[in-house]
Amino acid sequence: MAVLVMKFGGTSVADVEHIKNVAQHVKREADAGNHCAVVVSAMAGRTNQLVSYVNEAGGDNVCAEYDAIVSSGEQVTAGLLAMILNTMGIKARSWQGWQIPLRTNEAHGKARIVDIDADNLLKSMTGGTVAVIAGFQGLASDGRIATLGRGGSDTSAVAIAAALKADRCDIYTDVDGVYTTDPRITPKAHKLDKISYEEMLEMASQGAKVLQTRSVEIAMKHKVRLSVRSSFDDPLSCPPAGTGDENRVGTLVCDEEEIVEKHIVNGIAYTKDEAKITLVRVADKPGIAAAVFVPLAKANINVDMIVQNISDDGKFTDMTFTVQDVDMERTLEVIEQQRGTIDFEEVRAATNIVKLSVIGVGMSSHAGVAGDMFAALAEKGVNILAISTSEIKISVLIDADYTELAVRTLHTLYGLDKD
Amino acid sequence: MAVLVMKFGGTSVADVEHIKNVAQHVKREADAGNHCAVVVSAMAGRTNQLVSYVNEAGGDNVCAEYDAIVSSGEQVTAGLLAMILNTMGIKARSWQGWQIPLRTNEAHGKARIVDIDADNLLKSMTGGTVAVIAGFQGLASDGRIATLGRGGSDTSAVAIAAALKADRCDIYTDVDGVYTTDPRITPKAHKLDKISYEEMLEMASQGAKVLQTRSVEIAMKHKVRLSVRSSFDDPLSCPPAGTGDENRVGTLVCDEEEIVEKHIVNGIAYTKDEAKITLVRVADKPGIAAAVFVPLAKANINVDMIVQNISDDGKFTDMTFTVQDVDMERTLEVIEQQRGTIDFEEVRAATNIVKLSVIGVGMSSHAGVAGDMFAALAEKGVNILAISTSEIKISVLIDADYTELAVRTLHTLYGLDKD
Repeated sequence: MAVLVMKFGGTSVADVEHIKNVAQHVKREADAGNHCAVVVSAMAGRTNQLVSYVNEAGGDNVCAEYDAIVSSGEQVTAGLLAMILNTMGIKARSWQGWQIPLRTNEAHGKARIVDIDADNLLKSMTGGTVAVIAGFQGLASDGRIATLGRGGSDTSAVAIAAALKADRCDIYTDVDGVYTTDPRITPKAHKLDKISYEEMLEMASQGAKVLQTRSVEIAMKHKVRLSVRSSFDDPLSCPPAGTGDENRVGTLVCDEEEIVEKHIVNGIAYTKDEAKITLVRVADKPGIAAAVFVPLAKANINVDMIVQNISDDGKFTDMTFTVQDVDMERTLEVIEQQRGTIDFEEVRAATNIVKLSVIGVGMSSHAGVAGDMFAALAEKGVNILAISTSEIKISVLIDADYTELAVRTLHTLYGLDKD
Repeated sequence: MAVLVMKFGGTSVADVEHIKNVAQHVKREADAGNHCAVVVSAMAGRTNQLVSYVNEAGGDNVCAEYDAIVSSGEQVTAGLLAMILNTMGIKARSWQGWQIPLRTNEAHGKARIVDIDADNLLKSMTGGTVAVIAGFQGLASDGRIATLGRGGSDTSAVAIAAALKADRCDIYTDVDGVYTTDPRITPKAHKLDKISYEEMLEMASQGAKVLQTRSVEIAMKHKVRLSVRSSFDDPLSCPPAGTGDENRVGTLVCDEEEIVEKHIVNGIAYTKDEAKITLVRVADKPGIAAAVFVPLAKANINVDMIVQNISDDGKFTDMTFTVQDVDMERTLEVIEQQRGTIDFEEVRAATNIVKLSVIGVGMSSHAGVAGDMFAALAEKGVNILAISTSEIKISVLIDADYTELAVRTLHTLYGLDKD
């Protein structure tokens, strides 16, 4: 008998028919004797409708009201799922964020979870009632509803799993697990049975959309075992939790210790939403980097990769860095404002670039991973514009036109192609 | 400076455009320095959408979940109105039932208000923030959301006005006040400036749809002065509360004491949703009425008018009574089940009847009101099928075909026709 958190996103609960399918997944687990908490998102399309009201009202900056309005979407899904479970003879009740309570700070619209009092929830669950929880929302310290921002339902689910000390947190989505790379780029991509938190975190932040970075961080911190799986799998053919057959479906995101067979590289991720900024012929003197990057930080612009070349004469240099493409215009404005302080000839910006990352916990104990990568890309004529590395990741910036070629090359290089 | 409760129903907040119009009404009162609480219903159409989800889920009997789902409609309107007021530079915040809290019993779907803790609400209002309150909902003693049932937003508004000891509670609707009778039946109907609680209660229970009986009862009990008015009036041409000009719009429902000029009859109401049941040739012996009406009461069927004729031979009688037309089929079933106990020849049922009522506090001190009524109807050839009276009301049951004729005749008889 396991304590299980199950999370279903917007496409999994798109309409009442879909919610009935979700109920079958829950029934499987409840019938097996597991104590279930089910976290749900708003029905797909419903949040859009609510947001369109907000836009028409012209008040998207009145954040506490935005939260009161938008959080109603999850409230409806939770009520409907609890209702359907009851009609199927499964005891269930809905919980809104304030009813648990799941406490947050007062940063309405992008609140952080402060504390979850899981006592009442757990008591109800172990008493045999399925807890259906409205995701994405909590009770702020001002006594009002706060929403958790983008990917908030994943965050709710993982944080609740941590508070419940759940045996597992199943994230149901529209894909059947985490893949070695984007299957749309190479049909040789294969689903991973297990992946470590650290790798998943890199995969998520490097463009794999299956999980939000924030929820992986919480899972890693609290050692919550995550199973990423598809809600479109046949509910009755999946093995319920606690049967020892749990790895038959999805991908388990877990502690590195739990992974027996470690690969050097486990995944290849890429992200297209980067922009490259180059300051041409900047005066090469101390303090110039600070003069560029401090104002950007103050403007809340995240700088990713930075490359500085020494120029021929030692007096001038070219400085290249990347930012999120949505921040490009603002970055150029900030740079222009600094023209008095920073002495440069010209600023160039480009968005037709891609950041490509190979990720694997195994690489920290293997030499030559990066060298192999650079050689393989060079052989295919792929020019590397910038490089950044961490213990378990090597990222390179390349021309966007070479994305598919580079991904396929590296996928084969590191032995990830499926048989 | 007045403490004012304003209530806007579903058609007044049908969409964001309408809610912006509502905001203008609120602005008028806030600008005049009044402390405002605004109670809102769900956007018209939105409750229907939520109820259709519930029906598709097949769980309309899972009442606590029904409440969690349906109450979200009012939550959205309250958030949107508070948002719009803020963008207009008027400080406002939304309050959900559980945030006040407005406490109810656990009768989900048709809860009764138990207690309203208005301290925080009043503090916020007198601090200069408009309170926008989601109507129709409260916090049940089980810690969950409960809805108040039909007409619940009116009930919320009046109960909140009582708790706030408000100077007035303005009920904005799609008509501009309470009329002497239905203006669709006679163009000579005129709007009343004032009407007593007792009269309004009779008008409401006798078919005038403008206010729910329950909210009038609460208003009467707590002496809450109600103003019934139209949300479609120009917001800027209405005088704000506290200017002494308040009777220029709408109808004031107030204590009899406040009405200087009393009329014998103030209104003529009719209700079509009645069904007439006649038991033909019932054995005329003691206990027979109990044998008929106790089982109906047990089946929760409300019997309204009862007429019993003595038969020629003194052994048998015909017994006629009325019930709500929606209860007719069930009434016939209950009667059939009693055939063993009640000895009758035949049962007849009809729905083509109307109950017509003349209402006025003045009639208690005037003789001959009923006599005039019966004579006037007789003169027009209108047959009276049954009669019931109270201190301030005379009701007759007539053939539905005569409705318009009878209403117009009585409207003229009692001097209600406008000049």
